Amino acid sequence: MTRLTTSAAGVFVIAVTPFHPDGRIDMESCDRMVDFYLDAGATGLTVLGMMGEAPKLTVDESRDVVARILARVNGRVPVVVGVSAPGFAQIAGLTKMVMDLGAAGVMIAPPGGLRTDDQIVTYYTQVAELIGDVPFVLQDFPLVTGVQMSNKVIARIVNDLPTCVCLKHEDWPGLEKITALRAEGVLNKRISILCGNGGLFLPEEMVRGADGAMTGFAYPEMMVNVVEHFAKGQAERGRDIFDAYLPLARFEQQPGLGLAIRKYTLAKRGIIAHDALRKPGAALSKQCRDEVDRLIARQEKRLEELG
Amino acid sequence: MTRLTTSAAGVFVIAVTPFHPDGRIDMESCDRMVDFYLDAGATGLTVLGMMGEAPKLTVDESRDVVARILARVNGRVPVVVGVSAPGFAQIAGLTKMVMDLGAAGVMIAPPGGLRTDDQIVTYYTQVAELIGDVPFVLQDFPLVTGVQMSNKVIARIVNDLPTCVCLKHEDWPGLEKITALRAEGVLNKRISILCGNGGLFLPEEMVRGADGAMTGFAYPEMMVNVVEHFAKGQAERGRDIFDAYLPLARFEQQPGLGLAIRKYTLAKRGIIAHDALRKPGAALSKQCRDEVDRLIARQEKRLEELG
Amino acid sequence: MTRLTTSAAGVFVIAVTPFHPDGRIDMESCDRMVDFYLDAGATGLTVLGMMGEAPKLTVDESRDVVARILARVNGRVPVVVGVSAPGFAQIAGLTKMVMDLGAAGVMIAPPGGLRTDDQIVTYYTQVAELIGDVPFVLQDFPLVTGVQMSNKVIARIVNDLPTCVCLKHEDWPGLEKITALRAEGVLNKRISILCGNGGLFLPEEMVRGADGAMTGFAYPEMMVNVVEHFAKGQAERGRDIFDAYLPLARFEQQPGLGLAIRKYTLAKRGIIAHDALRKPGAALSKQCRDEVDRLIARQEKRLEELG
Amino acid sequence: MTRLTTSAAGVFVIAVTPFHPDGRIDMESCDRMVDFYLDAGATGLTVLGMMGEAPKLTVDESRDVVARILARVNGRVPVVVGVSAPGFAQIAGLTKMVMDLGAAGVMIAPPGGLRTDDQIVTYYTQVAELIGDVPFVLQDFPLVTGVQMSNKVIARIVNDLPTCVCLKHEDWPGLEKITALRAEGVLNKRISILCGNGGLFLPEEMVRGADGAMTGFAYPEMMVNVVEHFAKGQAERGRDIFDAYLPLARFEQQPGLGLAIRKYTLAKRGIIAHDALRKPGAALSKQCRDEVDRLIARQEKRLEELG
Repeated sequence: MTRLTTSAAGVFVIAVTPFHPDGRIDMESCDRMVDFYLDAGATGLTVLGMMGEAPKLTVDESRDVVARILARVNGRVPVVVGVSAPGFAQIAGLTKMVMDLGAAGVMIAPPGGLRTDDQIVTYYTQVAELIGDVPFVLQDFPLVTGVQMSNKVIARIVNDLPTCVCLKHEDWPGLEKITALRAEGVLNKRISILCGNGGLFLPEEMVRGADGAMTGFAYPEMMVNVVEHFAKGQAERGRDIFDAYLPLARFEQQPGLGLAIRKYTLAKRGIIAHDALRKPGAALSKQCRDEVDRLIARQEKRLEELG
Repeated sequence: MTRLTTSAAGVFVIAVTPFHPDGRIDMESCDRMVDFYLDAGATGLTVLGMMGEAPKLTVDESRDVVARILARVNGRVPVVVGVSAPGFAQIAGLTKMVMDLGAAGVMIAPPGGLRTDDQIVTYYTQVAELIGDVPFVLQDFPLVTGVQMSNKVIARIVNDLPTCVCLKHEDWPGLEKITALRAEGVLNKRISILCGNGGLFLPEEMVRGADGAMTGFAYPEMMVNVVEHFAKGQAERGRDIFDAYLPLARFEQQPGLGLAIRKYTLAKRGIIAHDALRKPGAALSKQCRDEVDRLIARQEKRLEELG
Repeated sequence: MTRLTTSAAGVFVIAVTPFHPDGRIDMESCDRMVDFYLDAGATGLTVLGMMGEAPKLTVDESRDVVARILARVNGRVPVVVGVSAPGFAQIAGLTKMVMDLGAAGVMIAPPGGLRTDDQIVTYYTQVAELIGDVPFVLQDFPLVTGVQMSNKVIARIVNDLPTCVCLKHEDWPGLEKITALRAEGVLNKRISILCGNGGLFLPEEMVRGADGAMTGFAYPEMMVNVVEHFAKGQAERGRDIFDAYLPLARFEQQPGLGLAIRKYTLAKRGIIAHDALRKPGAALSKQCRDEVDRLIARQEKRLEELG
Repeated sequence: MTRLTTSAAGVFVIAVTPFHPDGRIDMESCDRMVDFYLDAGATGLTVLGMMGEAPKLTVDESRDVVARILARVNGRVPVVVGVSAPGFAQIAGLTKMVMDLGAAGVMIAPPGGLRTDDQIVTYYTQVAELIGDVPFVLQDFPLVTGVQMSNKVIARIVNDLPTCVCLKHEDWPGLEKITALRAEGVLNKRISILCGNGGLFLPEEMVRGADGAMTGFAYPEMMVNVVEHFAKGQAERGRDIFDAYLPLARFEQQPGLGLAIRKYTLAKRGIIAHDALRKPGAALSKQCRDEVDRLIARQEKRLEELG
């Protein structure tokens, strides 16, 4: 199978994990979801991320989900798997498991206790040694991890560790970080920068030098469209499309509630069978579902006007 | 002067504090800003909030700013002043000072160390006793304060303390909180609920039962327009206006950077003379200013299309 | 096998997990450690706690460690197993596994995101429902979890959930909490209160109404001795013994470094073969080892003087 | 008056701020306290630190306290004043005020939001520029500030900023930090390192290379004695004295409650008239006061035995 490289670009959709209402994993919906994401133009998938409810799965379940998704993808696009864990034994075990199954690489977030520059660099140096030649995505998501990585720290990690091929950029605000990392002489190789935050800053991120997005949104076609239009030099058209989806994207980006909104929307679109989250997890009120419905209706109208 | 009451509604704009490039307070810009906010339809002002760089002012400067703004407002709308401080002596001193100057009430955020329900209720009970008959705004802003107030806690504070007349609602996500507080039998009086987060959820908040907004945005006319249209039952028109401003509002809501963007925009609009923040504070890169300019241009075009 | 009850008392030692220098679990040392703890007078053991490096073990390793320890204990004392995890599926799986192996109960810490009283009570209500009739220990350790449980919250959990039989008390400061929970009419049953913090406040905790300790220290005989002397009404003798061990106990209680110090001491005492921590983990400098050696020498001299 | 230099050594006692039961500052007790600290052998004083309830004082009160203490000290020892504040205007104002009154230098803690190495260095670079030639103490207290400074960061600050003359060392654990900073070639000047944490690790800190303590404890004579004995090469005697005071020192080091315990003890010793803390602040229960009384009685007995 193909391994993830520094030229990863486009949209790597962060996949949700579909459940039955009783909490079992819904494998049929997994298949449908994979097809949907790829039909929408995804150039890759990322599974078992934070928004994939990874921490709520047992190890056996994680393996089953990854195996199912990889089987369905069947080599059409690279699949990255989140393997963040408190201990090295778990990270090593998960990494071996998913790479054996055919993943293209792994994604690793820093543990919450890291603070100083050296602590962060040391952690990734040890992790990179641990997983050997497996390419990895550096996840920079301070709002959730509590770990602040400066440009210098990211540059040290990228420059020292050849297997660090991609930055999942999710600092907020983070635009200056992209510009800084793309500046002459900062990195000794041009890595892939794929952005997060539900795509909420995607037009600006593309201008700053991002290669695309690695995040979730119930309408991944928005991200695909925006990235493609910017790549083709049709920035204004890209912004028009972005703006049409923004009211819903903003709504889906509410912390805690966002995943429930995303799953509700995916279920409404017929992609997954149920909008169930695993416990402990948020549920949507009737009013919230109405709000989503209204945002979708207005979005469709706006897209029609755009043509 | 009029005191703040439970019927506060509309848009209380969180005022910035204008500075000269060398860090001195720019009093002329204060006057112009007050006139601008009121001309835009603000029904109140809130000064010395977090976005007013209050913690960077000396006590003497705080007094001078409040005095200048109150003089310029001259009773046209109520003015709320933020008086959050680590100690009761400071809160009492600031409250007396600003009420003597003519403020309509004060706003108080919880100190960061509060955790349990009882700790929060006890704190506000002591503060309310401390400031006597001065009406106060309860500031619920967990992203910044780190303090999570449940509906029950807010209800206990509102029901026990007659001087708590308004909730500055800034939880994220917070829509269910409005619905819960507006439900029959929860509160023993109908308080004012004014929402924050830069107006980013204003249409949904109005439907849930908010009375308006108490937040900042370089285009306060957006918030005024949205609130008025919802009040008049013209929700769809309100949403159209909201959507037109959303790309910029989203951009201005970036933590840390947001205030610099707001001041840059206000300066560009000719409302304040300089976009300077006091040290320590963020500065905008050339690219960021370009992004704002582009968002404003698109926003104007969109508003024109809307008619 | 016997299940944990509200009458748990004495010293439940938090067991370390012994490793070989290459990171494999050292099962022979597990056996020796169990014998040592029981010979020292432990009335129970707690395994897979935070100080047992539980988060660094794979699920298979966790099972193997628990099985080995239970086999060696062989019913002599009850064994509690830590099963805290981000998701309910994991908690349910771990609980079933360890109860099948013969554990007496499980210990559950709150996930770090819980803030309001109701959030905490709801979490434990759901967890208790999840694990059915398995008795559990409520772990109150705010310094590490970030979750503050008021007396009221603990009382609600204990009073609502019959399977909550024990509080692992590790608030700091926490003496008033014991007094409050032991007051007439607060709890509807007298639960077991076993204290943590490395035994650093054990004499005061016993006076306040604790039933003993559930914590780790390289000299568990200190805790056993203190608890027994207080139980026999020989408080001053208990305090003399406590004071003799305090300089080392204080040194072992350093966050981050403490476990390395504990393992170094246990290895020095011949109880475990190696002082190795699993990566990522702290290592002791030569100077630090000298400090421990000196503290042990002084401690032995002092104990001799005491007679 | 003398300015603080890199040769500061001995014990700089962190002074409490004495209050009357009604919350007014008790100036008579200030005088008595100063005399007591100096009679006990303090080589300096630090006022308006966190344990001085500085954040609860108004600016006018801060000035009055500093003026009173400086007048009473009357040049006998250098006095450091804490001037940490959210904004540069406040820091500059406070610094000028206290230096004009005769302070020897200021102490500055990092604002809680700082994370990366460069953020911390930049902050202190700007602050040092702001306060000109005033010598300052770098306060490294991560448990309270949340800011982790690596050895490298401290070295950059010390090496770049000539006015950084002293490190208030209060990391926990922090012994390796002292060793690292004292290693050949790390710093371009030998700064003063004075340790915190209530003196709880003072014997080990002295061996590692500290110059003394800058912290509070109701028995400052313990710290003076320990520092002097280590300085004279009588380490074992120093440890004997330390051990005698440790049970109470440990008890006084409880977060939140510690200051109330310290003030209760100082009042009991007749040094300050009242044990009152300003609101919001903890109060001691009868049981807690009994615990302190018992610890003091045992401490006196132990000291007598030591001779």
